[in-house]
Amino acid sequence: MDERVREHAEVLVDWSARVEAGDDVVVSVAEDAHDLGVAVAEALGERGANVTTLYGSDELSRAYLKGAEARADGDRSGDNPDDDPDDDSAADPDDPGGVPDFDDDPAVDRAIFEAADAYLRIGGGRNTTASADVASETRQAYAKARKGVREARMDTDWVSTVHPTRSLAQQAGMAYEEYQEFVYDAVLRDWEALAAEMARMKEVLDAGEEVRIVTERDGAPDTDVAMSIAGRTAVNSAASVAYDSHNLPSGEVFTAPYDAEGEAFFDVPMTIDATRVRDVRLVFEGGEVVDFSAEAGEDALASVLDTDAGARRLGELGIGMNRGIDRFTDSILFDEKMGDTVHLAVGRAYDACLPAGESGNDSAVHVDMISDVGERSRLEVDGEVVQRDGAFRWEEGFEG
Amino acid sequence: MDERVREHAEVLVDWSARVEAGDDVVVSVAEDAHDLGVAVAEALGERGANVTTLYGSDELSRAYLKGAEARADGDRSGDNPDDDPDDDSAADPDDPGGVPDFDDDPAVDRAIFEAADAYLRIGGGRNTTASADVASETRQAYAKARKGVREARMDTDWVSTVHPTRSLAQQAGMAYEEYQEFVYDAVLRDWEALAAEMARMKEVLDAGEEVRIVTERDGAPDTDVAMSIAGRTAVNSAASVAYDSHNLPSGEVFTAPYDAEGEAFFDVPMTIDATRVRDVRLVFEGGEVVDFSAEAGEDALASVLDTDAGARRLGELGIGMNRGIDRFTDSILFDEKMGDTVHLAVGRAYDACLPAGESGNDSAVHVDMISDVGERSRLEVDGEVVQRDGAFRWEEGFEG
Repeated sequence: MDERVREHAEVLVDWSARVEAGDDVVVSVAEDAHDLGVAVAEALGERGANVTTLYGSDELSRAYLKGAEARADGDRSGDNPDDDPDDDSAADPDDPGGVPDFDDDPAVDRAIFEAADAYLRIGGGRNTTASADVASETRQAYAKARKGVREARMDTDWVSTVHPTRSLAQQAGMAYEEYQEFVYDAVLRDWEALAAEMARMKEVLDAGEEVRIVTERDGAPDTDVAMSIAGRTAVNSAASVAYDSHNLPSGEVFTAPYDAEGEAFFDVPMTIDATRVRDVRLVFEGGEVVDFSAEAGEDALASVLDTDAGARRLGELGIGMNRGIDRFTDSILFDEKMGDTVHLAVGRAYDACLPAGESGNDSAVHVDMISDVGERSRLEVDGEVVQRDGAFRWEEGFEG
Repeated sequence: MDERVREHAEVLVDWSARVEAGDDVVVSVAEDAHDLGVAVAEALGERGANVTTLYGSDELSRAYLKGAEARADGDRSGDNPDDDPDDDSAADPDDPGGVPDFDDDPAVDRAIFEAADAYLRIGGGRNTTASADVASETRQAYAKARKGVREARMDTDWVSTVHPTRSLAQQAGMAYEEYQEFVYDAVLRDWEALAAEMARMKEVLDAGEEVRIVTERDGAPDTDVAMSIAGRTAVNSAASVAYDSHNLPSGEVFTAPYDAEGEAFFDVPMTIDATRVRDVRLVFEGGEVVDFSAEAGEDALASVLDTDAGARRLGELGIGMNRGIDRFTDSILFDEKMGDTVHLAVGRAYDACLPAGESGNDSAVHVDMISDVGERSRLEVDGEVVQRDGAFRWEEGFEG
C-alpha cells in the first residue's frame, strides 16, 4: 500500500476525529475508497476503537431511489401487486406526483448515529454523476425524510474526506497520479502549524467590526464589498473536530458576516445543481443581493437566490489558507480552502459563528462563491490591510 | 446488468427474507458483490423498505484485527504511546499472550441488529484467504466479544447468500462463467415446488424413530450407521425465513439425531480451519465417536472432536435435495444442499429440531461431513427404504 494512504488514515483518525480507545466509530467507504478504508480500519484497531463499516455506494443509492420511483409509479397506476391499501408507508394512490414517500424515521440509520461517537465519511466513487437519472423531486423527498438521521450524524464527531479515485481525477480534469499528488499535498499538511497560523487570522476577525475586500484585476469586474462582522466569532477550520472543523482537507477561517454593501465578482467556476456557473457578479445593498449576473449558468444562480429571503443575504465569509491546494478542481472540499482565495456564501450561516442563542441568516441553501485574491487585491479589517495580493501581514513579502 | 443478478435479488428479497413495506433491512455487501448489492437495493426500494448498507470487506476486517494485534503487542512491550493505565479496554499489560481485548458490547453494531427487521448478507470477496495472517487466538477473541452482536443478528430475519466472484470460482476450481452458471442453477430454483417436495421428507422424519444409512461403494469403506430421531422435528430448509431457513441456496431437510451406533464414511472433501480434510471415517458407540480416521487432515479432525464432550456426538442429520447443485465446490453453503447427498454434523444441534424447552447436543463446534449417496446406498426410516441410490420413494425410478 502507498505509504501516503496510511498517512492519510492517521491524519483522519488522530488529528481530525481524535479517536480514542473505546470509541464507537462508523466509517463509510465509497466504491473505490477501499484502500483508505483498509488503512483507517487498521488505525482504528491500533487505537482500540470499535469500528462499523458502511458501504457508501452512489450506485446503490441510485438503485434504491430508482426502485422507490418505480414503486411510486406503480402505486399511481394501481397495477403494483404489492399495493396494499392499509400500508401507509406506500405512496398515496391519490397523489398524482409519483414522488416516492420515504419513511422519515428509519430505525437502523437513526440507531447507528445515535450510538456512534465518530463518523468518518470516505468519499471516492466510480462516477460522480452516478445518480444523474434520479428525479430531483425524489432526491429532495429522500433528503427531507433523512433530516433526523442527518441531525444525529451531525451530532457525532464527523469528518468528511476523499480517497483519490479516477472518477474524481476526471472531474478535476487531471491525470490519476497527478490527482493523487494533489490530494495528498492538500491533506498531508503540518496541521499543528497551519492551525497556529489560522489562529492569527481568527484573532483579527474576532476583534474586527468591518471587513472590506477589494480587487482590481485585468479583464475582470472590480470587487469592492464591505460587510459587518461585529459580534461574530470566526472558526479556525483546522480539519479537526477539536476546532469544530469537519473536512479533511480544511484550512480556512470563516465567520458569519452581515449588512453587506457593494459589488463582488467571483472568478472561480462552480457547479450548482449540475449546471456550470462562471463569473458571478453580485451587488449588495443593505445586506441584500439587489442585482446579479453570471457569464454562464445565470438561471441556476437565480434559482438559488430565489429560494427564500435568506438566500439573498450572506451566510459566510471564508478565507482560504491551505497552500497545499494550488488549483481549482470543481470540488468545494478543496476549492474553498485554497490559499490566496476568499469566498462568500449566500444563505445559511453556521451557528458556531453566532453569539450563543442568537440565530444568524437562515436559509435552505448555502452556496459558496470563490474569488482568487492572489494578485492586485486586498482584504481590510477595520481599515487595516490584513492580506494583500495573497500575502498575510505576518508573512514575508507582505506590503501593507 | 445480467438479468440473473436481478432474479437472484428478487428471490433473496421476496422468497427468502419476505421483505415488506416499512421493514428496516440491513444489507452487507462484500468487496466484489457490488452488482448484487445494486440489484437488492433496487428491489428494496420497490418494496418500500428502508435499507442500510454495510461493507462486508474481509480485507477491512483483517486490517482491523491486525491493528488490534499491533496494539496488544505494543501494550505488552510497554512502548505504545497510547498506553493508558486507566484504559480498561486496552490489553492487560500483565497478560503475556498479546491477544487483543475487544469491547464485548460494541454499541453501534448492537444497535444496528436490535433495530433491524431483516439482515441480508451478500458474500463474494476478492480473496477467500484474506485473513490468513490473523492469529487464530485473535479471531477467537473477536468472535467471543461479538457474541451479543451475533445473537442480535440471529434474532432478525437473516439470510446469507453469495454473489459469484472470481475468488469463489477459484476456490471451487472453476472458470468464472462456469461458476456463475453453477451459482444461478443453485439459487434460481422453483422454490415453491422444492419446498413441497421437501415437506414430504420432513413428514417422514417427523413421524420416524430411527434412521439408518447404508452405503456399499467400490473402493470406499462401507457406511452402516443408525441413529434415533424420536421426538425430534425436522426443518424443511427451503431458503426462506418462513421455513426457518437462512441460506440461499438451501434445499435440505435436517433434524437432530442422537444415540448413533455404527460406522460412517464421508467421501466429500472439506476444509477445517484452513486444513484440507478427506475421507473421514467415524465409529459411533452409544452415541459417541469412539474411533476415527481421515486420509488427510486427521489432526484437524482430532482437534474438532476434542473441543468438548458434545463435539463427539451428532448435532445434525441433513438430506441434500437441491438438484441444481451438481458438484462439490468446497463451500458448505452449496455442498450440504446438493442432491444425492446426506451429511452428519458433530457438535451443536439446532434448537428448531428440539422439543420446546429441551436442549439438544451442546458444543462450541458444528462441523458438517458429507457423503455422496447417488449410488449403491440406501436411507431407511424405521426399516423402510426412503431413498435408494439417490432416488426418493416418491420419485420415478425409485426401486424400494
